[in-house]
Amino acid sequence: MLEMVKGGVCAAKGFQAAGVNCGIRKNKIKKDLAVILSDVPASAAAVYTRNLVKGAPILVTQNNLQNGQARAMLCNSGNANTCNADGVEVAQAMCGMAAETFGLQKADVIIASTGVIGQPLPLPPIRAGMPLLKDALSDSGSLDAAQAIMTTDTRVKEIAVSFTLGGKTCRMGGIAKGSGMIHPNMATMLVFITTDAAIAPAMLQKALKQDVANTFNMISVDGDTSTNDMCAILANGLAGNQAITREDADYMAFCGALNRVTTTLCRMIAKDGEGATKLLSVHVSGAADEKTAKGVAKSVVCSSLFKAAMFGADANWGRILCAIGYSGAEVDVTKIDVGFSSKAGDIAVCKQGAGIFFDEDAAKSILTADEIDIHIALNQGTYTATAWGCDLTYDYVKINGDYRT
Amino acid sequence: MLEMVKGGVCAAKGFQAAGVNCGIRKNKIKKDLAVILSDVPASAAAVYTRNLVKGAPILVTQNNLQNGQARAMLCNSGNANTCNADGVEVAQAMCGMAAETFGLQKADVIIASTGVIGQPLPLPPIRAGMPLLKDALSDSGSLDAAQAIMTTDTRVKEIAVSFTLGGKTCRMGGIAKGSGMIHPNMATMLVFITTDAAIAPAMLQKALKQDVANTFNMISVDGDTSTNDMCAILANGLAGNQAITREDADYMAFCGALNRVTTTLCRMIAKDGEGATKLLSVHVSGAADEKTAKGVAKSVVCSSLFKAAMFGADANWGRILCAIGYSGAEVDVTKIDVGFSSKAGDIAVCKQGAGIFFDEDAAKSILTADEIDIHIALNQGTYTATAWGCDLTYDYVKINGDYRT
Repeated sequence: MLEMVKGGVCAAKGFQAAGVNCGIRKNKIKKDLAVILSDVPASAAAVYTRNLVKGAPILVTQNNLQNGQARAMLCNSGNANTCNADGVEVAQAMCGMAAETFGLQKADVIIASTGVIGQPLPLPPIRAGMPLLKDALSDSGSLDAAQAIMTTDTRVKEIAVSFTLGGKTCRMGGIAKGSGMIHPNMATMLVFITTDAAIAPAMLQKALKQDVANTFNMISVDGDTSTNDMCAILANGLAGNQAITREDADYMAFCGALNRVTTTLCRMIAKDGEGATKLLSVHVSGAADEKTAKGVAKSVVCSSLFKAAMFGADANWGRILCAIGYSGAEVDVTKIDVGFSSKAGDIAVCKQGAGIFFDEDAAKSILTADEIDIHIALNQGTYTATAWGCDLTYDYVKINGDYRT
Repeated sequence: MLEMVKGGVCAAKGFQAAGVNCGIRKNKIKKDLAVILSDVPASAAAVYTRNLVKGAPILVTQNNLQNGQARAMLCNSGNANTCNADGVEVAQAMCGMAAETFGLQKADVIIASTGVIGQPLPLPPIRAGMPLLKDALSDSGSLDAAQAIMTTDTRVKEIAVSFTLGGKTCRMGGIAKGSGMIHPNMATMLVFITTDAAIAPAMLQKALKQDVANTFNMISVDGDTSTNDMCAILANGLAGNQAITREDADYMAFCGALNRVTTTLCRMIAKDGEGATKLLSVHVSGAADEKTAKGVAKSVVCSSLFKAAMFGADANWGRILCAIGYSGAEVDVTKIDVGFSSKAGDIAVCKQGAGIFFDEDAAKSILTADEIDIHIALNQGTYTATAWGCDLTYDYVKINGDYRT
């Protein structure tokens, strides 16, 4: 059975991690360089941003993962290494440093960077950080790594689960970062997942791609798709299960574990959106097809007006219908019901596309909670979707009004 | 020649207007009911929101304009009459009241409403307002009408021009409202234009549709397309020019006047975006086609991160490249140049897709102005486009955190 366990990306057998401050940031306390290392070669898969402007690390990682194998994930924060003339050379040099430090091939390294765009990333701090990373490497290093990849994040995002494949206990853990410029298209800002399950690279890529379409691609903090989004997974097979090579029961169990890890990280990312005070989960049911379900959920969770209303605990459901209306989905508005729920209760506010009487005080109380579920019943089919986001607050503006300085 | 004149929607011959407080709002001072009336039947055209959820007034107006003629525009603020079970009946009743009051046919009335969605619009205040409107009607009533259609707008939006068709002096004037839920698709929130030029209904509709694609559809305050967007024009022919019936020189002159009116109103709407402190004009040049030019301009002007950076006078051009990258346009990023200008000067910040050295103090000074131009040269063709928007500020969040109360 699927159980939560401790250890993050080090929960699975044969994975170590570390996070250190190497001096990329002016702040000399915040960790800014992380590594995750498998003791043995691992199946590797990743999905990337669909932004046409791709960070140099994305280009280098895509190339390195062509053989479906890797052993290390190296990531710095404080600088995205994007829109720099020397970006690819810098990313390759970082892979070279990791290879030398940990005794790998350069192509065994998944490389990632996050931070400001368009400022050259200096190599000396990273070179200086390598021996620090090597010294710090341990099977209890997940938290340090999770801290080192954070930018405007206010909370560490880490999770691990155990599950069983063919009688063998497997583990899977992940860390993530992401708070602003969050509107992933193929993957969220940065997510690193490890597992000791044995699975063929092609199956690993398939499982990841399918999962991300329902998880990280359904989050939005601010509608801005980053240039450096990536979700990568290493599966080193040390759990000893018979390797997954087709869509059998083991594959389904693997996908179930993966979905638990990714969904949990999704909620963590959305809840920690820049300036956010609330996690918003928009649940759409009764859609005629999957595209409609996802399109409606995403349109509502992206609406600035809806997000600001949630910040103010204002049950302004008209903005939800407005966002459904401009989503591009073909729906019959006169069939739509809308309701809200939270730990404080639940309330219906719209039936068949029109307002109904509801207790404003009760609605206010429900919307004052820090996790709010929005229920949209289209009543036109059987498909469902969930999208995650957060409220739009003064602090989002403050954080982004002067990010670079 | 095209010249600015006074008088707004009453500048053209044979138009009168009025704006009064009839009590739709709790606030008994703010005007909330407006009328614009042509002394004689006029060619009429309108473009509407593409939101699938359409306000009841939109549906009624679409029906009334089927014959390409109208005489009056009636508009209330404080309630959008949208997502109400009785919305169409209420909108039709309003047309009936206007017809009775001013001696028209119901189908001669263009009806519009703006305000909160999903709350029934009571008819008694509107009925009570009709005699007040009739008493107030005058050829100097444009300002009152412009005030009466405002919601969260902080500034009146009014303009008029004179121009010449076949030796006859014509006039055209417009008023507009719109501050939030501004991301028009076919039209902006509400724009009413009058002219005494003579023009066939089909030519009027063609001119308006073509113009709106380059003007109101290129504004965004918050990415939310309203349910009640409409831009309507009445042309009563009292200037005495030979009626425009084909795409001749007069048609071009008419389109030029229309574009001056609409562009000016666009800038007024964007600058008065909810909470805005700055007008942002994003100019794209060197695009391979029109779609690319418009798509890039719109994507940048809609980016929350870019908008917040402009609020902070932060020359964070990386966010501009990021927004170009996720716009869906096929561009070669390595050819893109970016610069900023304002009354304080101009500065280049990005050449061929990469950052260049620039004076941060000079950039800060340029971006501190209240009207900023962003110049994006794609260097891949000859097409251009401009999109208008505003910065994202604390006050946007404040205004929308509790709009209904």
